[in-house]
Amino acid sequence: MRIVECVPNFSEGRDKEKIERIMAVIKNDLNIKLVNYESDADYNRTVVTLIGEPEPMVDLIVKMTEVCLKEIDLNHHTGEHARMGAIDVIPFIPISDLTMKECVGFAETCAQRINQVYDIPCFLYAEAARKEDRVALPNIRKGEFEGMKEKIKDPNWTPDFGRAEIHPTFGVVGVGARDFLIAYNIDLATTDENPAKKISQAIRQSSGGYQYIQAGPVFLENRGHTQVTMNILNYKKNPIYRIFETVKMEAKRYHVEVTGAEIVGLIPKDALEKSLKYYYEINNLKLPEEYSLEDIVKDVRKYMLFRDFNEDKIIEYFL
Amino acid sequence: MRIVECVPNFSEGRDKEKIERIMAVIKNDLNIKLVNYESDADYNRTVVTLIGEPEPMVDLIVKMTEVCLKEIDLNHHTGEHARMGAIDVIPFIPISDLTMKECVGFAETCAQRINQVYDIPCFLYAEAARKEDRVALPNIRKGEFEGMKEKIKDPNWTPDFGRAEIHPTFGVVGVGARDFLIAYNIDLATTDENPAKKISQAIRQSSGGYQYIQAGPVFLENRGHTQVTMNILNYKKNPIYRIFETVKMEAKRYHVEVTGAEIVGLIPKDALEKSLKYYYEINNLKLPEEYSLEDIVKDVRKYMLFRDFNEDKIIEYFL
Repeated sequence: MRIVECVPNFSEGRDKEKIERIMAVIKNDLNIKLVNYESDADYNRTVVTLIGEPEPMVDLIVKMTEVCLKEIDLNHHTGEHARMGAIDVIPFIPISDLTMKECVGFAETCAQRINQVYDIPCFLYAEAARKEDRVALPNIRKGEFEGMKEKIKDPNWTPDFGRAEIHPTFGVVGVGARDFLIAYNIDLATTDENPAKKISQAIRQSSGGYQYIQAGPVFLENRGHTQVTMNILNYKKNPIYRIFETVKMEAKRYHVEVTGAEIVGLIPKDALEKSLKYYYEINNLKLPEEYSLEDIVKDVRKYMLFRDFNEDKIIEYFL
Repeated sequence: MRIVECVPNFSEGRDKEKIERIMAVIKNDLNIKLVNYESDADYNRTVVTLIGEPEPMVDLIVKMTEVCLKEIDLNHHTGEHARMGAIDVIPFIPISDLTMKECVGFAETCAQRINQVYDIPCFLYAEAARKEDRVALPNIRKGEFEGMKEKIKDPNWTPDFGRAEIHPTFGVVGVGARDFLIAYNIDLATTDENPAKKISQAIRQSSGGYQYIQAGPVFLENRGHTQVTMNILNYKKNPIYRIFETVKMEAKRYHVEVTGAEIVGLIPKDALEKSLKYYYEINNLKLPEEYSLEDIVKDVRKYMLFRDFNEDKIIEYFL
């Protein structure tokens, strides 16, 4: 079964009634699974995580556009997060039985329909980008809703779908395709931020280290310890076990214990299996052929010290 | 003391008398240390490794150009290695008390002098490149001596110094600046090439893994085991210990022992110190303040299993 994840962000994070009216369209959709949604009042923005088959996903995004168009007027919107549209960004992420190329196709179809039905200009970004300076979303969004009125008339910023004029209340929207990103943090049993800082520098792409890894140090005041906080941009090329073992190796020189790890948001089952395979192999074992989510949860707690981790963190739980 | 390494390659690897006449200029130079030179008959090419202060280095390269101009006529040269000049390539590598930018400056001075004195066209490459498609030397060299007669007339391939006409017997030369590269191999106690292949894929830049690392599997028939053979393109960002420990970690899943490691060519002292620091720290020790080359050799044998390694593999031995 072809499964796509879609994470639309809409520009309302304060008015609960409005948010629920928008979410009702999603909650009432029987074909698409709502994984979760989180509203941030400071950002004045809501992030929605959806999974399901690609065609009904596009249908739902088009319906969601209609309700956001009714509910949100960007002329009266303020918030800390940059935004250029009532729905600001719509990324499609291939999860199973779907290539990135096919995902780009669904992003294009989605953008085309949003434009045709509601006359909203759409920009294609990330893997769907048709120009190099549109790969990075912030390049497109620069100037935001307010600046876009002029920017869109610049021949360099003609939208990929639609006329060179923003929708007067909705603005414009970015539609893209990208790889699944794992937010992964490793706990260090110290309040000293230095080891987390040095280890981050050792493993992350920007200062040497592993490709596809973003990392930084963070001090968790409530929990009373530091973390190496990471994004794994390509878990197929740099699996979790490799990062975990390298962090442990680097931590040894600071005499700091690695006491736990956590996944923020969702993770695909095969990302866990791929890493557990390492631990099975070093113990001369084979991965179970029928590997239940329950057993996977047990094993990631045992081998990779995952805490606060349950089956509902695994994408396949929702399928 | 500012120290630069220079590794000129000249296009003669068969005629020993010719080679020795060229090398005599270098051997007679009292200011520059000849580390070694290796001629390859199949390649019909000789690689010379020199270290010393940058100004006398440039002087020597200019003198070396004169003797190569006398001794080598590329119209009568054949060999397996691609070449575009009697001296084919002149890379400058910063070793101590010298920035990359300063090294680029010496490459430029060297190219300018070679052109002014002998009317040989020069192309700047690597860090010294002034156009993006001249960063990679093979782009410049494509077409070789024979094709360069026409290629140099293409406005895209105007030389950085000189007229758009090759020297009739010498050809053209690439002058560049680049970082020090460490050729590093790790021994696996198996004849099966699969673990070396899989480990190479795990650690190298081209298939995920660490940045600045090129790696591949190799079977050493005479020694009867396989190796992960590597180039470390930036040892400051990815030190040897990190690669060594990661290879050991990956090797565990194949139940293969890491039994040794070797450096091909030279290595700077600080590359060894940087890695030994890790092992001292995990053992709660501080690096010796006066760390002799003799002690460094002992320690890299002990902690990183270097074999066939002596003081004369360390650049500082020659200073």
